[in-house]
Amino acid sequence: MKIDHIGIAVSNLEEAIQTYETVLNTPCYKREVVEGEKVDTAFFKTGESKVELLGGTSADSVISKYISKRGEGIHHIAFEVDDIRKEMARLESEGFTLLNSEPKSGADNKLVAFLHPKEQHGVLVELCQSRK
Amino acid sequence: MKIDHIGIAVSNLEEAIQTYETVLNTPCYKREVVEGEKVDTAFFKTGESKVELLGGTSADSVISKYISKRGEGIHHIAFEVDDIRKEMARLESEGFTLLNSEPKSGADNKLVAFLHPKEQHGVLVELCQSRK
Repeated sequence: MKIDHIGIAVSNLEEAIQTYETVLNTPCYKREVVEGEKVDTAFFKTGESKVELLGGTSADSVISKYISKRGEGIHHIAFEVDDIRKEMARLESEGFTLLNSEPKSGADNKLVAFLHPKEQHGVLVELCQSRK
Repeated sequence: MKIDHIGIAVSNLEEAIQTYETVLNTPCYKREVVEGEKVDTAFFKTGESKVELLGGTSADSVISKYISKRGEGIHHIAFEVDDIRKEMARLESEGFTLLNSEPKSGADNKLVAFLHPKEQHGVLVELCQSRK
């Protein structure tokens, strides 16, 4: 497994893009709205991994709710896998709880699944697989 | 810049090592106590980056205090730089606040510096440079 990306929840996406362009010293190379999740995203390349900024597009977005409860900050860490269904089955057999039983569509043309953060010491872990 | 590691604050390091060995499907390859920071660390390889679990070795450790306030979870994200002093100077000239004005010794034989999380939308950013 390699780190595909780190997802950061932000309340003002345009401001955060400017900040991270300066901190990471690299331009945002992609913007994408994920309608199903009500999030607007911005990506930055950092070696083989990416930083993904996430802003909610409405107050009932999972990102807006996260920020209301916890403030801005790192929301999840995503690991790339070759076969997401196989990896989901492996983790379920090890006793972990998946937040979605079937892979769903994420940003960046990926199939994604999430593991319950309580079982990873407070970390929301995403598995993702690139679509062919 | 590439992601050197993701630091995760945990309250029980031995338990967390078992969890992450299963989730990441890779063994912990290094343990190290950083006396100056009062933390015990455990590392996992994930592609070109690492996952670092951090447990406090006393109640006044920065990690123990973090967990008391925020709970377990992702504590920081570290980016590898070639020349940490040059990068610190660049970010200061851009108006960012460094938490330490001189690089200090971190785990994994690195020189490290931290940026104030308020200016990175709630994210504690570490810069690190490998010692020769």
